[in-house]
Amino acid sequence: MMRKINLSLLITLNLTLLTACASTPSAEPYIKILTSDKQNVHVDAWRITNADLGITPDIPWSVTKTTLRGGEQEGVDIITINNGKMKIVVIPTRGMGVHTVKSGDITLGWNSPVKQVIHPKFINLHDRGGLGWLKGFNEWMCRCGLESAGHPGEDQFINNTGDTAKMNLTLHGKIANIPASQVHVIIDKKPPYRIHVRGRVDERMFFGPKLELWADISTTPGSNTLRFDDLVTNHGHFPQEMQLIYHANYGPPILEKGSKFIAPTKRLTPFNANAAKAVATADTYLAPTPGFVEQVYCYYPLADKDGRVTVMLHNAAADKGIAMSYPISQLPYLTQWKNTAATKTGYVTGIEPGTGFPYNRKVERKFNRVPKVEPGKAKRFTLDVSILHGKDAINSTAKKIAAIQGNTKPQIDTVPPDID
Amino acid sequence: MMRKINLSLLITLNLTLLTACASTPSAEPYIKILTSDKQNVHVDAWRITNADLGITPDIPWSVTKTTLRGGEQEGVDIITINNGKMKIVVIPTRGMGVHTVKSGDITLGWNSPVKQVIHPKFINLHDRGGLGWLKGFNEWMCRCGLESAGHPGEDQFINNTGDTAKMNLTLHGKIANIPASQVHVIIDKKPPYRIHVRGRVDERMFFGPKLELWADISTTPGSNTLRFDDLVTNHGHFPQEMQLIYHANYGPPILEKGSKFIAPTKRLTPFNANAAKAVATADTYLAPTPGFVEQVYCYYPLADKDGRVTVMLHNAAADKGIAMSYPISQLPYLTQWKNTAATKTGYVTGIEPGTGFPYNRKVERKFNRVPKVEPGKAKRFTLDVSILHGKDAINSTAKKIAAIQGNTKPQIDTVPPDID
Amino acid sequence: MMRKINLSLLITLNLTLLTACASTPSAEPYIKILTSDKQNVHVDAWRITNADLGITPDIPWSVTKTTLRGGEQEGVDIITINNGKMKIVVIPTRGMGVHTVKSGDITLGWNSPVKQVIHPKFINLHDRGGLGWLKGFNEWMCRCGLESAGHPGEDQFINNTGDTAKMNLTLHGKIANIPASQVHVIIDKKPPYRIHVRGRVDERMFFGPKLELWADISTTPGSNTLRFDDLVTNHGHFPQEMQLIYHANYGPPILEKGSKFIAPTKRLTPFNANAAKAVATADTYLAPTPGFVEQVYCYYPLADKDGRVTVMLHNAAADKGIAMSYPISQLPYLTQWKNTAATKTGYVTGIEPGTGFPYNRKVERKFNRVPKVEPGKAKRFTLDVSILHGKDAINSTAKKIAAIQGNTKPQIDTVPPDID
Repeated sequence: MMRKINLSLLITLNLTLLTACASTPSAEPYIKILTSDKQNVHVDAWRITNADLGITPDIPWSVTKTTLRGGEQEGVDIITINNGKMKIVVIPTRGMGVHTVKSGDITLGWNSPVKQVIHPKFINLHDRGGLGWLKGFNEWMCRCGLESAGHPGEDQFINNTGDTAKMNLTLHGKIANIPASQVHVIIDKKPPYRIHVRGRVDERMFFGPKLELWADISTTPGSNTLRFDDLVTNHGHFPQEMQLIYHANYGPPILEKGSKFIAPTKRLTPFNANAAKAVATADTYLAPTPGFVEQVYCYYPLADKDGRVTVMLHNAAADKGIAMSYPISQLPYLTQWKNTAATKTGYVTGIEPGTGFPYNRKVERKFNRVPKVEPGKAKRFTLDVSILHGKDAINSTAKKIAAIQGNTKPQIDTVPPDID
Repeated sequence: MMRKINLSLLITLNLTLLTACASTPSAEPYIKILTSDKQNVHVDAWRITNADLGITPDIPWSVTKTTLRGGEQEGVDIITINNGKMKIVVIPTRGMGVHTVKSGDITLGWNSPVKQVIHPKFINLHDRGGLGWLKGFNEWMCRCGLESAGHPGEDQFINNTGDTAKMNLTLHGKIANIPASQVHVIIDKKPPYRIHVRGRVDERMFFGPKLELWADISTTPGSNTLRFDDLVTNHGHFPQEMQLIYHANYGPPILEKGSKFIAPTKRLTPFNANAAKAVATADTYLAPTPGFVEQVYCYYPLADKDGRVTVMLHNAAADKGIAMSYPISQLPYLTQWKNTAATKTGYVTGIEPGTGFPYNRKVERKFNRVPKVEPGKAKRFTLDVSILHGKDAINSTAKKIAAIQGNTKPQIDTVPPDID
Repeated sequence: MMRKINLSLLITLNLTLLTACASTPSAEPYIKILTSDKQNVHVDAWRITNADLGITPDIPWSVTKTTLRGGEQEGVDIITINNGKMKIVVIPTRGMGVHTVKSGDITLGWNSPVKQVIHPKFINLHDRGGLGWLKGFNEWMCRCGLESAGHPGEDQFINNTGDTAKMNLTLHGKIANIPASQVHVIIDKKPPYRIHVRGRVDERMFFGPKLELWADISTTPGSNTLRFDDLVTNHGHFPQEMQLIYHANYGPPILEKGSKFIAPTKRLTPFNANAAKAVATADTYLAPTPGFVEQVYCYYPLADKDGRVTVMLHNAAADKGIAMSYPISQLPYLTQWKNTAATKTGYVTGIEPGTGFPYNRKVERKFNRVPKVEPGKAKRFTLDVSILHGKDAINSTAKKIAAIQGNTKPQIDTVPPDID
């Protein structure tokens, strides 16, 4: 029995590694199955360390599985990667989102008014006029998608009788509130000993999308960088619309009065009239400002010669920051969400690479920003996030972004697009 | 304590047997309580075999209780009856539906794009314009009902202030997404040693219906037939509308190009304009056809001299099939749902005896197809399903149906009814 | 570790006790944490008795934690206080509601058509046109609130983009269907040895309310009185609207033909036209009356010189009853819900002190009955409920209420208010 499982697993794994992780050595990585709908497995608590595998003796790391208890977090799975330098808290139960990343005195994440890690069984996405998603929103990294990823409101779809019907989309889609049905911890036994937490999240429905997300969050021992390497597969028979936005959210210490966002920019458009008023100061941040109404900016970024976008957010002193880097071909649009409201309201900014902007899908479709996945095919999304400690790290990233910008003068729109 | 429980159980049981299973010997059957809200019982895993009871030494059978783990199936109860010939997989957590039945090379069931057995806590029936039911739909036999059983859309009801108000009905009602609150395995110790899985599903609400389904799925060791013997009781004070459709769904190997559906028919009406176009070929099936839009046909069946309807679905070679047989007085209407779409979309046909057709309840009410259950009374529904192995079994069933049809020429409508 | 937990707990506790229970000795009470999201605790079963603490040797009491199993009550937490005279059944999983209180031949509670204690994960508040709350309604004491507490229907709110948007409020709000995230049993070791069950229920949302209920239900050994001592805190940055109605529901033996409700009344207004027809007999009750449509009356009560309202409901013989007593400053409005329908429909009356009446919030706002909690501040709500055994207890309560009424002639309106 065990042999059979291991064999079939290795086959699955190797296939996945071949498509998703071409740069990772595929020989005999360590695999632990924490959740599997197919093998009827759900592990409550578990832990592994470098010592258990007899590798990286000078860098102590661990991966720990725990389960949250109490109230609306009862039964939520948590996997914590401590790579010796960073602690990455993954939430398989909430669509493989990442709650926080901590490295020294830098935390990626924010202080949301939502304190618990809410189990999806307590979320009604249709609540509050389609804003029910906000009841659970407190992650550093929360994927929006997959059938839709933007604002709530009516859009059309084809129903079971083949007719065009109306449905109410809900804010930022479903994927962040679907528990992963398969969760593996995979550790490469060869340098650089990459540690993966990988999970499958199904967004499937009869007479609806048959989308599958294989989310992979990984890092290497001692590193300040983590990587998202996600595959979205269409298991349907026809091309399938999909949307994906990486809603990465930052509060203090990276966000503060005078923090700065730097992105290589071809064009910048305010999301709406409110954002338009402050477009001139899009790149800088206010202190917590009671009554501040969110300002959202739509960026068309520039890429380097390898086709990669690099953006940075750093604090006022320019000695703490983060950089996000990814292929422009995968995530051609970038949204900056400024919500520098009162601390108790949620002082936060979202830096959000995406397949589109967060307008309602019908708007995105009109502007040709809703890609389709061909049947049986997958779209891959990779995103590196680096924690920047100290002025040098920030300066060198700033230079890199300046080099991408080069002499290109960004087009700054002062009015929002006509979305009607 | 045990004595008390057993006594009260036997009383309950005997009453139930008297009303629901008049043909079953009632003396001292074996009883196992797997779930009981009243006794605060929920058994995670359990198994019994013929050897345990010292009966049917030549026919090894078993009943096994397991619990699914992982993702959206976490905590779903499964009871598998292996009667020595057939494996019947019952899902108490999904309203006592039956996921699959396997007998030799025949499987009752289908390959839905929904792969997991989704726990109702992850289903929002109001999603997607009232089509949320489709997120969990992958059973062979899925009951639709009880307050409503048909298409979504607005219907009226009496609210708490005594006023006529509007509510949005959701597709196929609630019963398939309500976990059973009491589940018993009952095994007769006298021939033919019938094995029952019986569960109580409550569809109750203050200022709403007080309906109770006691669902009974049974078979005998070595048999190719299983039986549904369901009681729907109105625990309210007033007559209560109810709807029940046995949504039995078939894919390969019974469904294939050239498969045939045979029903003794008084009248056949296409459900809508799309179905009307193909009414002449209602009884035969296409191969998987990408882009196929569901065709639904409404049958007014004929019964034999005992008042029973028998219908059959068989494959192209007429050597694999199923027959369904039931009293016409209980289930006077029959719906055939043809969805011979692409395999990945869901290649399936539903053969659906019901108290009515699957139009929205307001349509059904207009056509007097919404029965009422008197207060304190129950309606009984019995349905035998036989797996037909080989040409002989199919031929003899065909003859039986032909005899019911006799010289009655069916009325075939070419236009759908005026439902507005 | 234990020491650290105990210290921080004691600090929290003492602060809470100082604000919430000024009259309770705060020195070293016994504390048991049954649920804590912060400490990742959820105790399945537990019990303590007077003997365990070595106190009140002549009054045997106990507090017992159990978990319900089966169907839609799977996983529901129950805490039963048996104070030697009364059994109080608290439901942390349903917002710290109280299912029943039993004392001798008197039960506080009612025979709802909803039989199980339904877990919130199975409740969709938006079902049935916003009446989904009724699927779980069977408690004696069910709090309505906190963001809204009244009838369903559209009301406005400020959405994430700062715009005024529309949302559908659902009947009686959310708080009764939110599981408590922290639950303590606290027992004073000094006379009168008060026994508390205390729980924190969060009604929090990003771009929404940040309200916290600390619900405290307590009694003393051998007493016929229980006390609610609740704190509602606004953790947001701005003043926050809130509504709270104590929906206390009574069936037999207190409710019967000829039962009487006595309240010191400044003014009484029928809720709607149906109630207006019977305003003259608002204070008396019918036998179970099939087809009875609920009658709701809005009371503006009078208080005694200490600012306390006392109301009473008693049976026909005036030998079984209850009294509820509370500061009029906290709960200035009082609703009487008469639903003397058929027994199977739910024969029940609600006596409901509140911050307002149960109209939709937009109506309440128009009439200035929606209080606001200042940021960082809390509103306290205290309510004593006494079980009255025998004519003497009822007579003396009647005299007390008569004294409050004095010579004030109540204004009895014969038409409902104009709410449009």
